[in-house]
Amino acid sequence: MSKIYVTGLGPGAADQMTVQAQKVLEQCPVIIGYTVYIDLIRGQYPDKIFLSTPMRKEADRCRLAFEEAEKGQDVAMVCSGDAGIYGMAGLICEIGKDYPDVGIEIVPGITAASGGAAVLGAPLMHDFAVISLSDLLTPWEKIESRLRAAAESDFVICLYNPSSRKRADYLAKACDIILESRGAETVCGTVRNIGREGESYEILPLGRLRDTQVDMFTTVFIGNSNTMELNGRMVTPRGYKDV
Amino acid sequence: MSKIYVTGLGPGAADQMTVQAQKVLEQCPVIIGYTVYIDLIRGQYPDKIFLSTPMRKEADRCRLAFEEAEKGQDVAMVCSGDAGIYGMAGLICEIGKDYPDVGIEIVPGITAASGGAAVLGAPLMHDFAVISLSDLLTPWEKIESRLRAAAESDFVICLYNPSSRKRADYLAKACDIILESRGAETVCGTVRNIGREGESYEILPLGRLRDTQVDMFTTVFIGNSNTMELNGRMVTPRGYKDV
Repeated sequence: MSKIYVTGLGPGAADQMTVQAQKVLEQCPVIIGYTVYIDLIRGQYPDKIFLSTPMRKEADRCRLAFEEAEKGQDVAMVCSGDAGIYGMAGLICEIGKDYPDVGIEIVPGITAASGGAAVLGAPLMHDFAVISLSDLLTPWEKIESRLRAAAESDFVICLYNPSSRKRADYLAKACDIILESRGAETVCGTVRNIGREGESYEILPLGRLRDTQVDMFTTVFIGNSNTMELNGRMVTPRGYKDV
Repeated sequence: MSKIYVTGLGPGAADQMTVQAQKVLEQCPVIIGYTVYIDLIRGQYPDKIFLSTPMRKEADRCRLAFEEAEKGQDVAMVCSGDAGIYGMAGLICEIGKDYPDVGIEIVPGITAASGGAAVLGAPLMHDFAVISLSDLLTPWEKIESRLRAAAESDFVICLYNPSSRKRADYLAKACDIILESRGAETVCGTVRNIGREGESYEILPLGRLRDTQVDMFTTVFIGNSNTMELNGRMVTPRGYKDV
């Protein structure tokens, strides 16, 4: 039975790929993904068949993967970050019910929360919530209620998709909700182009994050009540000292 | 300047280590970690100096790393999973202020949320909260308030440290809190020994998870209101269809 390996490539740098993901790329004759990610790896594997579809054509891309696998060859379906976190793993599992003769294996990768945290220092040492600000498939009210709940119960918060051309003010809106229960001095961090050329980061208070413009290549971290800046790093202690 | 590389090894299997982590282990003459993780990698690197301290001696282990680095050699401080998620990265950054001549670099790894999700299918396709049930350094009331907030606002929930000998009933207590706002039929999953020998998993409803005994090698996933079981996999759709 041929198989689709839904594979996370990590945040961009080839070095942040797992050994398992590397083996999958070496062993699968067909590699499918969103055009941008395919271009990142094409040069390293000259003998492969590369197939891609543009952004927002995710379901088409999945069916393409199953059709290739039905021809009897293993397929690597690649995503940046972790295929299992806001990635392609779910859609492949859903569409897979129409292709019972194709196996599915999920190969995890370093997600932006892990990769970005490593750049900033150690913001995720304690309980955290990961929230996407994209309202393409989720009602904004749902996103707001999650932001409010996470802020009120002192989670460290990691924001994916904090901005786009159409949603330039979403980070400010999210910060306003968080500011209802957290101080403006709360330590925050932004990381841009994690693991890629031009990687950069900034550590700044929540009050200033509110008025900062970020782009879609940025991941945002909002500290909990104990998070501090320490020698230029964002660090959340692993517990509460008054226990 | 010599450096400490705080390095996550991933959930156990050598294949789930990143290429970057592998290079760190190859290049650092000294490798320090908790005894169990050191034993996992000792055989592959016969020429290294291996140092370890038992569990709960984390601060001693960090100081040992800085003392070795001060001798002028690079040190790999290894943890399972991701060094940046409930790992050693924070303590190294905190203690690092006493050792200004030693550099620090965090090398991210696959955390149990990513590794376990890949075994179960695709439970983390939408916003999620990661909560540790260990009350060693966190008041239980704080943990309860986070469980309640995450359950009420429909996060997928991933539980770390769901049990130990002294806390045999903590998972049941956590499920009772989640059951206040989620149905007993909510799709859940448990994964034991992720990426290691004897890896196993189970998909089961929240009502039954409540009465299940798990151990400290298990990671627990509680689906959101849309999570389903699909061909033996736990799958959360990436959005809400009524948008």
